[in-house]
Amino acid sequence: MHTNTHQNQPEAADATPLQRRFDEVRQLTERLTESLSAEDQNLQSMPDASPAKWHLAHTSWFFETFLLKEFAPDYRWYDEAYCYLFNSYYNGIGPQYKRARRGLISRPGADEVLAYRRHVDAGISRLLQDLSPSRRQTIAGLLELGLNHEQQHQELLLTDLKHALWHNPQFPAYRNTGPVTAVAAPLQWQEFDAGLVRIGHDGNGFAFDNETPRHKVWLQPWRLASRPVTNGEYLEFIEAGGYSDPLLWLSDGWMWREQESVELPLYWVSDESEGWQEFTLGGLKALDREAPVAHLSYYEATAYATWAGKRLPTEAEWEAAAQGQPVDGNLLDLDCLHPRAAPSTGAMDQLFGDVWEWTSSSYSPYPGFSPAAGAVGEYNGKFMVNQMVLKGGSCVTPAGHIRPGYRNFFPPSARWQFSGLRLADNIQ
Amino acid sequence: MHTNTHQNQPEAADATPLQRRFDEVRQLTERLTESLSAEDQNLQSMPDASPAKWHLAHTSWFFETFLLKEFAPDYRWYDEAYCYLFNSYYNGIGPQYKRARRGLISRPGADEVLAYRRHVDAGISRLLQDLSPSRRQTIAGLLELGLNHEQQHQELLLTDLKHALWHNPQFPAYRNTGPVTAVAAPLQWQEFDAGLVRIGHDGNGFAFDNETPRHKVWLQPWRLASRPVTNGEYLEFIEAGGYSDPLLWLSDGWMWREQESVELPLYWVSDESEGWQEFTLGGLKALDREAPVAHLSYYEATAYATWAGKRLPTEAEWEAAAQGQPVDGNLLDLDCLHPRAAPSTGAMDQLFGDVWEWTSSSYSPYPGFSPAAGAVGEYNGKFMVNQMVLKGGSCVTPAGHIRPGYRNFFPPSARWQFSGLRLADNIQ
Amino acid sequence: MHTNTHQNQPEAADATPLQRRFDEVRQLTERLTESLSAEDQNLQSMPDASPAKWHLAHTSWFFETFLLKEFAPDYRWYDEAYCYLFNSYYNGIGPQYKRARRGLISRPGADEVLAYRRHVDAGISRLLQDLSPSRRQTIAGLLELGLNHEQQHQELLLTDLKHALWHNPQFPAYRNTGPVTAVAAPLQWQEFDAGLVRIGHDGNGFAFDNETPRHKVWLQPWRLASRPVTNGEYLEFIEAGGYSDPLLWLSDGWMWREQESVELPLYWVSDESEGWQEFTLGGLKALDREAPVAHLSYYEATAYATWAGKRLPTEAEWEAAAQGQPVDGNLLDLDCLHPRAAPSTGAMDQLFGDVWEWTSSSYSPYPGFSPAAGAVGEYNGKFMVNQMVLKGGSCVTPAGHIRPGYRNFFPPSARWQFSGLRLADNIQ
Amino acid sequence: MHTNTHQNQPEAADATPLQRRFDEVRQLTERLTESLSAEDQNLQSMPDASPAKWHLAHTSWFFETFLLKEFAPDYRWYDEAYCYLFNSYYNGIGPQYKRARRGLISRPGADEVLAYRRHVDAGISRLLQDLSPSRRQTIAGLLELGLNHEQQHQELLLTDLKHALWHNPQFPAYRNTGPVTAVAAPLQWQEFDAGLVRIGHDGNGFAFDNETPRHKVWLQPWRLASRPVTNGEYLEFIEAGGYSDPLLWLSDGWMWREQESVELPLYWVSDESEGWQEFTLGGLKALDREAPVAHLSYYEATAYATWAGKRLPTEAEWEAAAQGQPVDGNLLDLDCLHPRAAPSTGAMDQLFGDVWEWTSSSYSPYPGFSPAAGAVGEYNGKFMVNQMVLKGGSCVTPAGHIRPGYRNFFPPSARWQFSGLRLADNIQ
Repeated sequence: MHTNTHQNQPEAADATPLQRRFDEVRQLTERLTESLSAEDQNLQSMPDASPAKWHLAHTSWFFETFLLKEFAPDYRWYDEAYCYLFNSYYNGIGPQYKRARRGLISRPGADEVLAYRRHVDAGISRLLQDLSPSRRQTIAGLLELGLNHEQQHQELLLTDLKHALWHNPQFPAYRNTGPVTAVAAPLQWQEFDAGLVRIGHDGNGFAFDNETPRHKVWLQPWRLASRPVTNGEYLEFIEAGGYSDPLLWLSDGWMWREQESVELPLYWVSDESEGWQEFTLGGLKALDREAPVAHLSYYEATAYATWAGKRLPTEAEWEAAAQGQPVDGNLLDLDCLHPRAAPSTGAMDQLFGDVWEWTSSSYSPYPGFSPAAGAVGEYNGKFMVNQMVLKGGSCVTPAGHIRPGYRNFFPPSARWQFSGLRLADNIQ
Repeated sequence: MHTNTHQNQPEAADATPLQRRFDEVRQLTERLTESLSAEDQNLQSMPDASPAKWHLAHTSWFFETFLLKEFAPDYRWYDEAYCYLFNSYYNGIGPQYKRARRGLISRPGADEVLAYRRHVDAGISRLLQDLSPSRRQTIAGLLELGLNHEQQHQELLLTDLKHALWHNPQFPAYRNTGPVTAVAAPLQWQEFDAGLVRIGHDGNGFAFDNETPRHKVWLQPWRLASRPVTNGEYLEFIEAGGYSDPLLWLSDGWMWREQESVELPLYWVSDESEGWQEFTLGGLKALDREAPVAHLSYYEATAYATWAGKRLPTEAEWEAAAQGQPVDGNLLDLDCLHPRAAPSTGAMDQLFGDVWEWTSSSYSPYPGFSPAAGAVGEYNGKFMVNQMVLKGGSCVTPAGHIRPGYRNFFPPSARWQFSGLRLADNIQ
Repeated sequence: MHTNTHQNQPEAADATPLQRRFDEVRQLTERLTESLSAEDQNLQSMPDASPAKWHLAHTSWFFETFLLKEFAPDYRWYDEAYCYLFNSYYNGIGPQYKRARRGLISRPGADEVLAYRRHVDAGISRLLQDLSPSRRQTIAGLLELGLNHEQQHQELLLTDLKHALWHNPQFPAYRNTGPVTAVAAPLQWQEFDAGLVRIGHDGNGFAFDNETPRHKVWLQPWRLASRPVTNGEYLEFIEAGGYSDPLLWLSDGWMWREQESVELPLYWVSDESEGWQEFTLGGLKALDREAPVAHLSYYEATAYATWAGKRLPTEAEWEAAAQGQPVDGNLLDLDCLHPRAAPSTGAMDQLFGDVWEWTSSSYSPYPGFSPAAGAVGEYNGKFMVNQMVLKGGSCVTPAGHIRPGYRNFFPPSARWQFSGLRLADNIQ
Repeated sequence: MHTNTHQNQPEAADATPLQRRFDEVRQLTERLTESLSAEDQNLQSMPDASPAKWHLAHTSWFFETFLLKEFAPDYRWYDEAYCYLFNSYYNGIGPQYKRARRGLISRPGADEVLAYRRHVDAGISRLLQDLSPSRRQTIAGLLELGLNHEQQHQELLLTDLKHALWHNPQFPAYRNTGPVTAVAAPLQWQEFDAGLVRIGHDGNGFAFDNETPRHKVWLQPWRLASRPVTNGEYLEFIEAGGYSDPLLWLSDGWMWREQESVELPLYWVSDESEGWQEFTLGGLKALDREAPVAHLSYYEATAYATWAGKRLPTEAEWEAAAQGQPVDGNLLDLDCLHPRAAPSTGAMDQLFGDVWEWTSSSYSPYPGFSPAAGAVGEYNGKFMVNQMVLKGGSCVTPAGHIRPGYRNFFPPSARWQFSGLRLADNIQ
């Protein structure tokens, strides 16, 4: 967690706006689940994905553990069992219920988890009312961390749920979504000169600890595609035999493809009578060839790029290109819930929203990085191996939660996120 | 399925008693689940166990598939997806949803499954009202099969649920159960002479196809313990190092024990301050040393018997001893939901109810066995390998569903059923 | 081990014939390996199979452990490490080197293992020369057990080696074998009446403990095919889609088939230009449609029998039919090393040799069975679960090592032995 | 493969020195195996490790495939089966025998593989004699690649063999090695200023393609330890509970540690009577506390660094510090075969030899990297994911095969190489 951001914004620690923001974020999480049955909320389709109910509870546990237990006078755990059940991976706090079994917890039920949320909400409100000046900064910083944490889980709640519903052969919709008819803009290339760039958190607003410290990187000249690769373009790769030519793939990628019998992006369905279809949060739909391709693993993204004679950008190249660009797009607030084509603006398009873009950079500490102090130091740093960085947010990333320096990260085989790619190239 | 039983009972095909019996069995299933939340009903803790909701639906699917679809005029599937989702293993009917994923089906929800049950119930009622004489026997036979099938699932519903609740670290109770204070009767031995005995279905009442044909078996003289082994006796085996001496175990059993790190019967908890405890359908309780030991694998049962210098009975020995004994005991209708000690009657005690008793007989076809005709022929015969026979029913077996010739069967490593043992011995 | 056999043969304990028999068996083992390189002898292709070198050493360890260490005055281990490396599964003797890693032992090398054999041979010779009358019976009994043990390993040595060579894409031959041109006799059915039969060791000659005690079994009338199923007959099953119809298979068998992608008997190769071929100890050969089909799992054998509208015999049916038949056939001494057709004798043909015949009987203790006393008691009894009995020996079973009561046993998925089947049927 | 290196060394393409160097490298490989039995040479203890015999053959296959088959007139494969058996991972050449099964190939035997080597050696000699000027550069470049390839396999041959011998409970020695009594120099810290550095191949001499192109990297000021961490220092970490505190470990590292039950570096043995011991190529020895710690995974190396309050260096930091340093040390030519302490030179010590040093840099393409053309392009590039870079060579790296820019790479869990660490730190 990065707290120096608040030194420039002392008014941020005033209780009222904090309370307002807290309410907004918390309410959004519940709105995302209000159409779901108790059974829907308890589904867990793989160890990496958690039930919606668990997300509802865990985000509350975060506030309870790092704020109420620390700063609320005489606070006692709402339920000691929750401290075990809803601790994700904080060994500094205590042991955790086995991740792969989160779907086996029917009790507490959905209603009990909502009651837990109410209890934590009330506790936070009291805490904000009694903010002593000495703790104001610390508490405001942790609260902001908790809210960003909850926003991350809003996205995961939707992608985890999508993965679970996918296992139902009836392909049920999370929510009805409308038709999309936009056409992809022609692909353009933008060139960037060599030089020393600065990447990482610039000190304005919130950032996670993994975005710090801001530092210099030397870049060779590079080019970047104006928009992500589309479903239609990816289909060409498939039809050209991309999934059967090992020379296009990283060695680990080819092994993964063979072991998992991967022949299509996740959620694609090839139906004899219906043609290409795609499972979306709105149910099964005809594949939109104009929309950015999503649900690719890093392995598929690199195989496509190799086939196209290009490469993925590095994190620094992507971030340097994104600095100064408007941070908007098809994010969660548009409620589209799926990537879609966008008109060209003449510059870099769709950097934010639609799909997370795989970079060729492994998720490593920035020079001089040190994790936040205390148990929240486990938030990011301990995952800095075996993962690749993704940039830009997706159609289910909450608005306000994304920025050029934001570092998302997943193992190269992961594809249940809305993960796609944008091509890059060298300039000789 | 064995239908000649009805030749002696033509009145069994009269609609009214059939309807009454149908209603009783169907209602019991629902009473077993009425205290459960929708989330409870959707839990699946391992591939071998199914969610309660799935049991509710599958038992209805059985009537729909083998009765309504076959005999109700112009019957159409309630929902074609159900035919796939709730088919357990009948390849003759069609493909099946993957067993290990039954807990991933949130839709249909619990209410929708109850509506499905209502629909099937109504269909069966109509079918019974219009019974043509020519089909009366066939339909009555299949209905009786369906009801016995549903009774099997009543037991599985409870043992599967117990296994699921066990994964909740709060050890929630399915239902409050009272204290038990009975004392085990002293162990006596009853002797039996050599000779030709007849085992298998004697033609009275219903039997599964696997209990036929009745046939002769030559038995050497044998002795049988008057009651099952108790928790207290099993504790002596534990304390004597039974779980650490490979010479007491079958070779496969020892490998299983090492791989699974088994050191106690399933559901036993050794707590420093509380002593020996056991998870029951009524929650965590102090271990009752007088009650029959339960939740043993065949491997544990044989290791205990070896340690005790005895052996398990064969299926034929057990059945010969049980013929003519009263078929009652601690069965589901007593609502005890856990094994308990019983006073001595001076003869063979607790043959029925309390715990299923492992025999040393593998589950094989009887001489002359042939599976029932049609798709129901997959009911039993195809499982006749890699399983051992258990006899006598348990505390969650519905009354009326057990008899001396009943053949239950599970792989030797299974222990989530109420499975215990009764000792046998040779007479030199 | 069963020693009462020797009560009728006191001269068997005379040293000279024992020494002669010892030499013959030991020399045969070495002849079987003399054409193999040191690398050949160290191959291990799966945990269930052992390197030839390990067989050479383990059979010597058996004599060293159960004879020299017990009875030779002041005997000290040849090498204490061998006691660990070459103990197969005798927990009563001590811990064992991990079975799956036997192929990782390059030292001792092949020459060192031969030296170990020489040392044990010399020790046994000395022991036999000094036989005190009081120990004569015991030692002669254990020696006979050790020789039968070594004969079992002669067969395993060849089947394990065949499995290892199969992994070499060049399909190397163990030894050149000649062409076979025999034609299968027409299949006849022989009928047997109901009645009490006696099976198990009749007291003449050596038998393993698992063949005792002799006991009565009641049999219904049955029919038995005059010869095993041939490759040509099995091919009809394949061509009729036998490997793609789950209704023909046991449930576990179908799962096994799917998991292992089994579509042919082990060692069969379908080659576009060459047609059907089979890997043999003589290398890759054209499939001989007249020869008995071999290398089937129990699952395949039962699927074939179901498809043919028949069943497998029980162990007792097979043994009753074999009693009094001449014990000869295509055994190891003919050096054919592969099953082959045989002319009809007008009675039961090919009961002995060619292929082990799967029975429908699980491997269980006979009534009154008790394992031999001491550590050799682990020889057989602890394997009496999850295995099926096979009868009759194969083309690599040493002559003199087979008899009607002999009980071989393997898990139902095993097929690296020469395992085939003979059909049986009920007589209504 | 990088061939521009030869533009500055035209005389390198002269046949005689090339032949001499070829002979030297080839002979060293055979000297490394000459003390091994055929069985030793065929051991494979895990899929990642190959038998020594396979290394002998594969390195010859490399010359045969990329030189003889390409450039020798009318060359025909020595044995087509070898092309399949000894192709490691070149999909561009053809399919490959399954990696995990290399230990199952007894034929060709050790002698046949030596004959294959002789054949390839003779072919290369003829090729070098007839070098046409037009192909001289290409062939000299590929030959140099093949020799560097063979040197890599010299190291792997020894580390793979060590891993295999470790599975023998007798802990056999590969070769007798003498005692070592050196004392570790005191640990000093050397500081480096911020700035743009250039890393990657500088154009002098041979380099693999993954070392190119040379490029600029901006570095923050950093400090580097003067020598690697010693066994004694690592023992302090163990005794302080380093293996039981998850807060010191990367999340994946902790999971790895738990799954594999890792509590010590690979090859360490804690013996009650003997104390700490270590398995070496010279057999089991007392642990030398002064020597650099070896056989650590990346996870262990980072846990140690975290415990020490330091970090691992990045690849660029390490390489910048190593540029200009003398490239010598405890390499294979010293025949020590194990890391050992070295006296201080007052500067950076033991950068080369002793142990490969884990860096915190994932193995990624350098900016502008493109794989060598043709099938040899699979050499390096396709492994650029899920691996970390190691620098500096080890005690079994051939002299002349290491340089500051050399990039070794292994997955973070690998520890059968001589892998250790050197600490780094930030300068605030």
